[in-house]
This record gives sequence, structure tokens and C-alpha cells, in this order.
Amino acid sequence: MLPPQIIARKRDGHALTAAEIEAFVRGATDGSWADYQLSALLMAICLRGLNAEETTLYTTAMTRSGAIADLSGIPGFKVDKHSTGGVGDKVSLVLAPWVAACGVPVPMISGRGLGHSGGTLDKLEAIPGFRTALSLAEYRDQVARIGCALIGQTPELAPADRRFYALRDVTATVESIPLICGSILSKKLAAGIDALVLDVKFGRGAFMTDLPAARELAATLVRVGRAAGKQVRALLTRMDAPLGRAVGNALEVAEAIAALRGAGSGDLMEITRALGVEMLLLGGVAADPAAANARLDAALASGAAAAKFREVVAAQGGDARVVDEPGRLPVARRIEPVAAPRAGFITAVDARAVAFAALRLGAGRARTEDTVDPAVGVAGLGQVGEAVVAGQPLAWLHANDVAGLDEARALLSGAFTLGETRVAPPPRVAERIGE
Amino acid sequence: MLPPQIIARKRDGHALTAAEIEAFVRGATDGSWADYQLSALLMAICLRGLNAEETTLYTTAMTRSGAIADLSGIPGFKVDKHSTGGVGDKVSLVLAPWVAACGVPVPMISGRGLGHSGGTLDKLEAIPGFRTALSLAEYRDQVARIGCALIGQTPELAPADRRFYALRDVTATVESIPLICGSILSKKLAAGIDALVLDVKFGRGAFMTDLPAARELAATLVRVGRAAGKQVRALLTRMDAPLGRAVGNALEVAEAIAALRGAGSGDLMEITRALGVEMLLLGGVAADPAAANARLDAALASGAAAAKFREVVAAQGGDARVVDEPGRLPVARRIEPVAAPRAGFITAVDARAVAFAALRLGAGRARTEDTVDPAVGVAGLGQVGEAVVAGQPLAWLHANDVAGLDEARALLSGAFTLGETRVAPPPRVAERIGE
Repeated sequence: MLPPQIIARKRDGHALTAAEIEAFVRGATDGSWADYQLSALLMAICLRGLNAEETTLYTTAMTRSGAIADLSGIPGFKVDKHSTGGVGDKVSLVLAPWVAACGVPVPMISGRGLGHSGGTLDKLEAIPGFRTALSLAEYRDQVARIGCALIGQTPELAPADRRFYALRDVTATVESIPLICGSILSKKLAAGIDALVLDVKFGRGAFMTDLPAARELAATLVRVGRAAGKQVRALLTRMDAPLGRAVGNALEVAEAIAALRGAGSGDLMEITRALGVEMLLLGGVAADPAAANARLDAALASGAAAAKFREVVAAQGGDARVVDEPGRLPVARRIEPVAAPRAGFITAVDARAVAFAALRLGAGRARTEDTVDPAVGVAGLGQVGEAVVAGQPLAWLHANDVAGLDEARALLSGAFTLGETRVAPPPRVAERIGE
Repeated sequence: MLPPQIIARKRDGHALTAAEIEAFVRGATDGSWADYQLSALLMAICLRGLNAEETTLYTTAMTRSGAIADLSGIPGFKVDKHSTGGVGDKVSLVLAPWVAACGVPVPMISGRGLGHSGGTLDKLEAIPGFRTALSLAEYRDQVARIGCALIGQTPELAPADRRFYALRDVTATVESIPLICGSILSKKLAAGIDALVLDVKFGRGAFMTDLPAARELAATLVRVGRAAGKQVRALLTRMDAPLGRAVGNALEVAEAIAALRGAGSGDLMEITRALGVEMLLLGGVAADPAAANARLDAALASGAAAAKFREVVAAQGGDARVVDEPGRLPVARRIEPVAAPRAGFITAVDARAVAFAALRLGAGRARTEDTVDPAVGVAGLGQVGEAVVAGQPLAWLHANDVAGLDEARALLSGAFTLGETRVAPPPRVAERIGE
């Protein structure tokens, strides 16, 4: 069957067959489909959808488009976490070493930031010397040796997704639940994991702004992951205000280190702990949530979590001294406060506005080819429910370049809403999906 | 506004603004939009549609994407005809010289065949020496001098359409009424005409198989053409059985010449005359249908219509002797009958099956880059309502190559349905749209 015939079938609202989906994914991998044919079918899928069976077939074909890492020789149930992306989301940096310190192997494949959303790889690379581009063999060896690796997608894993991902970004075909599902799961399934916990975010600062869409994505991910033989659970978490008090790469590493040393902000710890409990249960090292919480508490109190992070940083070529001396992280030349215009209570912090302020300072990427400045961003962010007097800092800008400073200041200042009465911040974890 | 933002607006079901539509068409013309972005938006348009205003804006932007021929110096109201394509559709070859012989200038821009549908340019090029690739200046001069030119789209006219057309064919985005409307009208409007008559076909052998879709296309073409300041009328005509008795380039030229000499088959003459009446009325050379018919009759009886065709062929470098000696046209090496398996009445002839038989012999193109064999095809086709005895030829294969002969024979034989009782062929012209 020729590409236009397959495209026409989806355009006309039919379910594609296994052979048609495989031809599409193979065409993306071997180049036999032109970009304009891929993007036409991607748009038809955006508008016509894929049913449950098609989504599973698509995800499976993507997973098989490249190598599949074999971690079966490593003892234990390997569990990864994936987040759909938010503002100030440094959860992976805290969670992976913490859970690994509790005895669950965590082979974690992460991505880079784009647009308003940050990326774990960019954050890790703020640590001097840290290498995220490990080969599949190095990755496997490190998980076997120390129980944790934090790397980027290797060229061997799910190559079809790489072509689709580049194309979707420039053809407005990102917003499709089956396409998102295939992209997320294919990489994770190819990475050789046994189970997966998902942090599906919703709200102003999330990719999916409304809860029903996030719920549908979570349910799809859980269902397709299980159809592929993996245990998958999802938490739906609020992303209206930034997570924690820092947005920016080195600033978030410093905040993650503080959390690993027992000084994380409440919202960050709430989500990280909830995900950690799921991973310990899936990993079979705790019988119930109470036991999982106790084990997590112990790993934090003993310093085992921070020690595991030190180990991972050293294994991947980074300067492990940052874990004890965060001052070794890159620092911006200019640090200035944004002051509260009047007294009141912080009733809202617009995550998207904060993200664009950090982006304007050079902390993120407007386009894939942009480079990030590890030192810059926003820190000391006031949080919902806190009180300020007039002139008190609401947050601090960390800048290297004065070019975008005025714009960043205006964005950051406008991100805060002050009220007369105190409102309590809502819990971050809204729902849990998966038995 | 960036391409992905414009694509996303249509993906989400919004009406595009004039600026957005102009950016899209300009992006196709100057290459600033990538093929994969154009195809994503084309697919979104296929599925979300364009409203009346958007369709007009799209058509106008396409028209203005290149040069607009200025025929205003030529006296008279210039009228063209366009057909949505069928099987055995040699109407243009008869109609253009016939109407021009009645005093209405006919500047006609035609296309090539693709798939099951033939093209006027391929048919004309079966005449030894005939040039269809005239420059805009040659085209204008010829219309001024002899009142008729039959040419292909020049590179200057509607270049955006050329890029869209090539892309739509390979991305399953052909079947969209607003996109078809823009493609047809932009070329015609750029060609400098004053009025247009449309032959919108429906049925098994047509591009649109059902009457409601054909009616919607016709209404859109009439509305958008008028919004662009042109007089437009449309006939909806049946294309279940092939038109006339021949399918294949030289074979159709021979049939068109016979028609110009007064020996056309009933169905071919019915459509050609109905379109001719509209063109004479639009051209202002007849006050009412009766007067138009009388003028058409006179041009046929006097030999003026055939003489005008001779003039056009000579002006475009062709061997004008073919008009009197059709034996000068290319002839296939092998001509063989397909016999009726039993006695009966022909109750149906499947135009699409006949087209594929001719295509298999080399009369058409499966892909744009294929070349056609002018000599081959199918001739002497029996028509609905005719009687045959067992063994009587239903049609004749004209072949140069034995390779596809068996397949073509099977297709042609299977195209005919025989019944016990006679059914009358339905009239070809079903409806007329436009005041």
C-alpha cells in the first residue's frame, strides 16, 4: 500500500490496520516516507484520532523501530518515572537517587527543555562535567553497578520517534493524545524498564491545561503501557504555580540538592514522595504505602539519598562536590529582587509567566537549536499562601545579560497575584490512575 | 505569525484571517514554508474545511501568486470552459473551436491526465507537431488573431497552485472542495478570462462519485468565481459510462474531429452543445438559447467549426491535415475486438474499468512522470441502450505492447453489463447552476 492510500484511510476516519501502522512507522525510520507525507498523516491523526488498538500498535511499532535495551541481567524490578513537563519541575533529580537509595534500580531517560517547559538533561548539565550522552552499554553498566543512571535518548532508541518529534514541533501536530502516548512510551519501553510511574501535569503551566485532557492522556498511557506488558501508574498533579522556589538550570539543581538533604519545599516534596511511594511499591521493596514512606524517610535521614546522587554525578563525569558545596554550580553575575508593590497574601503565581521570565534571561530554548545559560533564572519564588509586606522580594532574578532584564522583570512581577486574605495552596497531587 | 501557529488555528477549527491565508499561499510560492508544513495545513483544511470567505481569500491569493494575463485589449467577452475530468471527455477539443467559430474568443488553459482521468493536453499532443507549451505572449497573440488557443498552464500563472497540486497528489489531500475550487479558479482567473462555464461531472467515472458533492463543488465554484468578479455557470453532468466511443489520445482526437464534421455521438454532442449554448449566451453573441443553438448549428453545417480547429492546429505547429485525413494520427500496431459473450442489451458500461483498460495499454499516467502512448486505447465502445448478438464486438483494444493486453482485455470485457431488456441511457446533463 502506498503512503497516500494509507493517509487517505485515516483522513476518511477509518481505523488503520497493523500493517498500515507498521508501514507508516517504518517509513519514518527508513526514510521511505517523505516528511510531507508523515506530517499529513500526523495531522489526520490529530483530527481523527487513533482508537485503543491503533494507539497500542503505533506505540509498539515505534518501540521496535530501533534497539531495545536489555536490562534483564540486572537484579531487581527496574522502574522509571516520566513527567509531561512543567515549570520548576526538578522532581527527577530528587526522585531518581532517592528511590535508587531505597533499593529500586532507576534507569531514567530524560529530555531537554523546549518553550516554557524545562528539561532534566539541561539541569543535569549545569553540574560541571556532567555527561548525559552515555552509550547504551555505559547506561546498562551504570544501572548494574550503582542502581541509577540519568541519560538522554540515545540514537539507537526509538529512532522513529525522533523523526516524528522534530516534525510535530513545526507542523502543529503535538497536541494529540495517541501521538503523545506513542512518543513517551516508545522511548521508555525501548529503554528496558519493567514498570513506569507517570506524573501527568495539568494547569496553566502544564502542556495540558485542563484536567479531563490530562486524565485521558494518563488513562491512555496506563492502558497502552499495560498492553505492552509493563506495570504503569499515573498521578495527575497540579501545575498552575511553579513547583518549588527556583526556575533555571543550576538554580534547580541547588534546590534539588537541598531537597535530598531534607530541606525541600512542601510542594516539591509532596509530589516527589507520592511518586517515590509508587516506585517502591512497583519495585517490590515495600509492601504498602506506610512501609514505602518509612523507607523513603530513612533514606533521606541517613543521607543515603544525597549519597546516591553524589555517586551518580561522579559516575557520569560530574563534579560530585556540588552536592556538599552548591556554590560550585554556575552563578549569575547579576542578582536582583522583584519587590511586592504592596502588602498582602500571595494568592496565585502564574507558572507560565515565570517560565517566560526565565526563558527571556536565557534559561531555556525558544527553538531546539538554541543553547541555554545554566546560571540564569528565577529563585526564591514566593509561594501561594505566603504573606509579604510592601517592598519585600517576591522573587529574585539571576541574570548574565542585561538585554532581556526589563522584560523578565515585568513578566516576573506580573506573575504574582496579591490578595487581602490568605488562601491555602491546593494539594499538588489531584488523582491517581492505575490499580 | 509562524507557520505552526497558523496550522494550529485551522487544526483547532478556527476560520483563518486574510493575513493568515496570504502567508500560507505566499509561503508556498516563495518557499518559506516547508513542504511538510504545507501538507499539514492542507490536511487540516481537508478535515476542517474553509468557509465561503476563506475559500474566496484562498482562491484570490492563489490567483495573485503569479502573473495575471491581460486580454483586455482583445475585443469581445472571453469565455473558457473547465471540466472536472472524466473518461473519454474530449469535449474541449470540439467545444473550443466550435464556440470560437461562433464569434466568442476562447482562451483555454488545460491540464494533463492523471490516474483514470484523461487530459486535453495529452490528446492535443497526439496531433503530430502540436505545441501546448505556448508563452503568455504567444497565447495572447493567438487569441487576438484567431479567437482561440488551447494551451497548458504556463510557469507564470498561479505558481502557488503548482506547488500545492504536486503535494496534494502524494499526501491524500486532493478531495477537498475549497482546495479544488482554489486550484481550478486560480488558474482560470489568472488566464485573463471574463466568464467561465464549468462541466462538473459525477458518477462512477468522475472524480466526485455522488451528485450532492458535485453540486456543492459547482455551487462553490460559481460563488467564488462571482466574488472574483467573473460570470460563472456550471452544468452537472453524468459520468457513469465513458463519454462517446473512444478512450485514448489519438482515438479521442479522431472522435472529436468527426464531431466537428457533424458525426459526433449523441451523448458527446448533448454535453458539448449544452456548454456551447452557455458560452454563446455569456459571450453575448446570442440573445437566448434558441438563437445560440441556431448559431451553433450553422457553424457546424457550414464547416466553420472544423475550419477553426484546422486554424488552431496550424497556429500551434500541428499538422492541420489531420482534420481532413485522421489517418495521419498515430495508429496502434495491434487492434483487436472484445466480443459479447451472449446476446442482450448493454445496460451499463463502467467508465472506470474502461479507463483502467486504456491506462494499462499506456494511454494514461499512473504517476505524473510517466509518458503516454498517443496511439493506444479503446475505441468503438458500445453504448448503453444498444443491442449485441453473441460474438459481436463490444469495443476494440488498440495496443502497441502485448505486456498489458490480457489485463486490459479482462478489464474492458468486465466493464460491460448485458441485460435482457433495453434500458434508455439517462440524459448526460442533470442540472444547471447559475442564473
